[in-house]
Amino acid sequence: MTTQLVLRFRAPDRPGIMGIIAPLLANHGCDVRGAEVYGDEGTGGFFCRMVLSCPTGRDELAAVIEPAARQLSLEWELRDLGTKMKVLIAVSKFGHCLVDLIHKREIGQLPIDIVGVVSNHEAMRKTVDWHGLPYHHLPMDQGKPAQEAAFLSLIEKTGAELTVLARYMQILSDEFSAQLSGRCINIHHSFLPSFKGAKPYHQAHARGVKLIGATAHFVTPDLDEGPIIEQDVRRVTHAVTADEMVAIGREIEASVLSRAVRWQAEHRIFQNGNKTVVLSSI
Amino acid sequence: MTTQLVLRFRAPDRPGIMGIIAPLLANHGCDVRGAEVYGDEGTGGFFCRMVLSCPTGRDELAAVIEPAARQLSLEWELRDLGTKMKVLIAVSKFGHCLVDLIHKREIGQLPIDIVGVVSNHEAMRKTVDWHGLPYHHLPMDQGKPAQEAAFLSLIEKTGAELTVLARYMQILSDEFSAQLSGRCINIHHSFLPSFKGAKPYHQAHARGVKLIGATAHFVTPDLDEGPIIEQDVRRVTHAVTADEMVAIGREIEASVLSRAVRWQAEHRIFQNGNKTVVLSSI
Amino acid sequence: MTTQLVLRFRAPDRPGIMGIIAPLLANHGCDVRGAEVYGDEGTGGFFCRMVLSCPTGRDELAAVIEPAARQLSLEWELRDLGTKMKVLIAVSKFGHCLVDLIHKREIGQLPIDIVGVVSNHEAMRKTVDWHGLPYHHLPMDQGKPAQEAAFLSLIEKTGAELTVLARYMQILSDEFSAQLSGRCINIHHSFLPSFKGAKPYHQAHARGVKLIGATAHFVTPDLDEGPIIEQDVRRVTHAVTADEMVAIGREIEASVLSRAVRWQAEHRIFQNGNKTVVLSSI
Amino acid sequence: MTTQLVLRFRAPDRPGIMGIIAPLLANHGCDVRGAEVYGDEGTGGFFCRMVLSCPTGRDELAAVIEPAARQLSLEWELRDLGTKMKVLIAVSKFGHCLVDLIHKREIGQLPIDIVGVVSNHEAMRKTVDWHGLPYHHLPMDQGKPAQEAAFLSLIEKTGAELTVLARYMQILSDEFSAQLSGRCINIHHSFLPSFKGAKPYHQAHARGVKLIGATAHFVTPDLDEGPIIEQDVRRVTHAVTADEMVAIGREIEASVLSRAVRWQAEHRIFQNGNKTVVLSSI
Repeated sequence: MTTQLVLRFRAPDRPGIMGIIAPLLANHGCDVRGAEVYGDEGTGGFFCRMVLSCPTGRDELAAVIEPAARQLSLEWELRDLGTKMKVLIAVSKFGHCLVDLIHKREIGQLPIDIVGVVSNHEAMRKTVDWHGLPYHHLPMDQGKPAQEAAFLSLIEKTGAELTVLARYMQILSDEFSAQLSGRCINIHHSFLPSFKGAKPYHQAHARGVKLIGATAHFVTPDLDEGPIIEQDVRRVTHAVTADEMVAIGREIEASVLSRAVRWQAEHRIFQNGNKTVVLSSI
Repeated sequence: MTTQLVLRFRAPDRPGIMGIIAPLLANHGCDVRGAEVYGDEGTGGFFCRMVLSCPTGRDELAAVIEPAARQLSLEWELRDLGTKMKVLIAVSKFGHCLVDLIHKREIGQLPIDIVGVVSNHEAMRKTVDWHGLPYHHLPMDQGKPAQEAAFLSLIEKTGAELTVLARYMQILSDEFSAQLSGRCINIHHSFLPSFKGAKPYHQAHARGVKLIGATAHFVTPDLDEGPIIEQDVRRVTHAVTADEMVAIGREIEASVLSRAVRWQAEHRIFQNGNKTVVLSSI
Repeated sequence: MTTQLVLRFRAPDRPGIMGIIAPLLANHGCDVRGAEVYGDEGTGGFFCRMVLSCPTGRDELAAVIEPAARQLSLEWELRDLGTKMKVLIAVSKFGHCLVDLIHKREIGQLPIDIVGVVSNHEAMRKTVDWHGLPYHHLPMDQGKPAQEAAFLSLIEKTGAELTVLARYMQILSDEFSAQLSGRCINIHHSFLPSFKGAKPYHQAHARGVKLIGATAHFVTPDLDEGPIIEQDVRRVTHAVTADEMVAIGREIEASVLSRAVRWQAEHRIFQNGNKTVVLSSI
Repeated sequence: MTTQLVLRFRAPDRPGIMGIIAPLLANHGCDVRGAEVYGDEGTGGFFCRMVLSCPTGRDELAAVIEPAARQLSLEWELRDLGTKMKVLIAVSKFGHCLVDLIHKREIGQLPIDIVGVVSNHEAMRKTVDWHGLPYHHLPMDQGKPAQEAAFLSLIEKTGAELTVLARYMQILSDEFSAQLSGRCINIHHSFLPSFKGAKPYHQAHARGVKLIGATAHFVTPDLDEGPIIEQDVRRVTHAVTADEMVAIGREIEASVLSRAVRWQAEHRIFQNGNKTVVLSSI
């Protein structure tokens, strides 16, 4: 009976971290199934993610790591891969990303527990109801401060560790963004940093680009400027209209967003200044 | 004995153009081997490119088309695919695009006739000499106006129909750009409109994008704003340094630029306002 | 008031076809909005697809074309883009392609009319019911001949012009395949011709390929040998398990299949021997 | 003054390996700059590659590791990244991969030392001479056994650690392949396992695939069946002829092969049965 755990940490880079951590794990009987370590020259950050087969539960190993982690100034987490990440999804009127996330969770392809769906519209209620998920209509007519307060309280109540803006077409206040720092992922429907702001496919069409894309990023107070997690593109021609770009783009958006959510749920992503480190080996 | 010709034209869109042109071609005994026609809703432009097997030479067919073309207000060209486009290549110190274009021409993969290489440096002379091509060193220390005058006079003397800026690291004057409008292609080492200007890979690295790219575009007085012909991208990770992006990018640049040059040499590209129409069927 | 029509035809290649057809269209007042023409050197086939703005309905134009088409031995169709193609979808237990097709139709992204869903299992009934589509359970325990007879009779009754095998895990009889020739599209979960037959992702994993893919093709009596319509791939590493390939592959399958279905619904695809010609300009 | 080293090893998987190795490195003053570890469920193999900043030279650290490595049954190597891998390139008549490898080495993009070029033809002599590299013409008319003996003796004399078959159009004998096991990379001009054997682009054209590709793999006695290192594809249409596929494919071949060679020169690749593990973090 072993537990599958992820140990992940970051630290100011200095020699010897692995020399202290690795023997602790070995002495505890842990088997390293996969690991990736990255020392960033730019920021001097040291990032590590390990998948461990552990003969005990999470807490026993955590107790072993804790003193060393403190001594080494690690920011660390030890996560049980058997426990799914709680995710709250926000959506407005376009359901393609939401439908994709729900479907992938239902067929066991996304290790998340969707604790609810928030929307400033009623458009997606029927779909969400049918999948047996709680739907929270938080209309904007109560004013943004009240609406965001209700949103935050919902995050707290549901215990959501991750909030996913799955084409949620509201600009968040700085306070809201700041409070969700590192635990809120947005999908922007362009290949950032091109075409920030509204109607990016129409901007792309007007500029005549030959590839269109989508970008999943952490939400920060700077709109469309947060650390990029994942991007992808698809080829278009002069004959593709702006509306057809919107249609083609939906598939890219859903695909990119679901990858970002999966990586976060698998504890692969670190923020590194305004960039991300995604450790992806098993 | 047939001649392979390309007939291409653009016109203000109005019904009946094909109804007049097609019988002319048929009566002349031409066989349409492939064709693409595109009516642009945005600009109202009508674009057509046909590959014809023609029982006569180019000029006999041109004489047949001319009156109709005048009546229909066509901007048209009739090109013999047996005649290679004359191309002048400009380069500074980085030779990867130049080497790629020369190699592809030598193995018969690019239907161009390289009439010479222009550079503001001596770095590529040895390579160009070895391939038996004329090398023209046009240093900048004579001042930009004199240098550009020499450049233009070279274009005229060589009869170059296309000037390719294959990593030519000089900002062209508005006058120079304007004079080469529609017959000068540049490779920009980013996925435009992201990362205009200098050191785009370093900009991309700083922003933390997950894909880097390159863009071939027609040169216009607005730097990095010309009509986009072709783009491509390659995936990178957090672990790829700015210098490694430069290295990865070289391959994308050479590939994208050579496609743009080939399409131009095959008479596929139309400027359509600040965009391009690339008709690519055979 | 104009009608948007697609005129498509194929013919044994011979000069002059466009010279006869184009004036007919012009005299009828049709405006060519886009067209692609392809003469295949290998088979000698000549393929054409045009999008027309027509001042009359479909039938009036058809009457004009008919005599010329007969004289030129064209295999031709004239389709009204306002009339959606009737599509019957077959599925077994995996719903990802089905869900994707239904969603894309619901948001207006696929010009099809789903006339029903056929399955040899009950697994997808609940989903299909909820979307208000007829579900036909045709179990295999009645024997393949009876089941296929029921399937064919359903195609006839519903008037389906296209049958889509959206992960329908049954090998069709030669007779069934032959009867649906040219109007039945299958998605195979590998990059054909690699990994024909069962469990292709497990075959791909065993071989250690670095890209996995999916293939949409017309169904023919030769299993997995039909004319390929569309393919796509996604990068994998050594660390991706066969089960994870299955998961990654679902997205490729849904994407590739929906493109093939859209192209068929837009009357773009021609069979050309054991290959396809896909004319894709607008 | 630090040395940049790569420590790589494989072992039968068992817990505790990192717990023994990591402290040795730490005590020696090594700083782990990046690492990737992979435990393969299928074969039970454990693979590790680390980039180390080491305060001593390679040999001092090797002496420290050696006893532990023996005890743990590691197959291991410790490589100095300052020492370029010696590479011998074999070519026949098509020079695109050769030219690409030479160019990338010349601009510092490939950490290899090209010790010579072998060919069964004279076609590439002029090019190779010009780049100042030794050219060895080993014609086949002496018979394959004699030719291969000369080839092997050249590998030995030059000290080549890697032999690259850069479109070397000779089938190697089983003995030759076996002797170069793990240190000979071939580029096959198809997306394996599709289209093994001769004229793969013509096979691809005949089958009507919509993507063509290339595959770099280790050479084994089973032709085109060796462990795959890297693959890539490019989109084609029905209108692309077999000859045009050959042309498009050249770029994919050169790109894929140069990546495989770089990874090998950076000590990233492990054979794992008939598959490869490519550890790619920094």
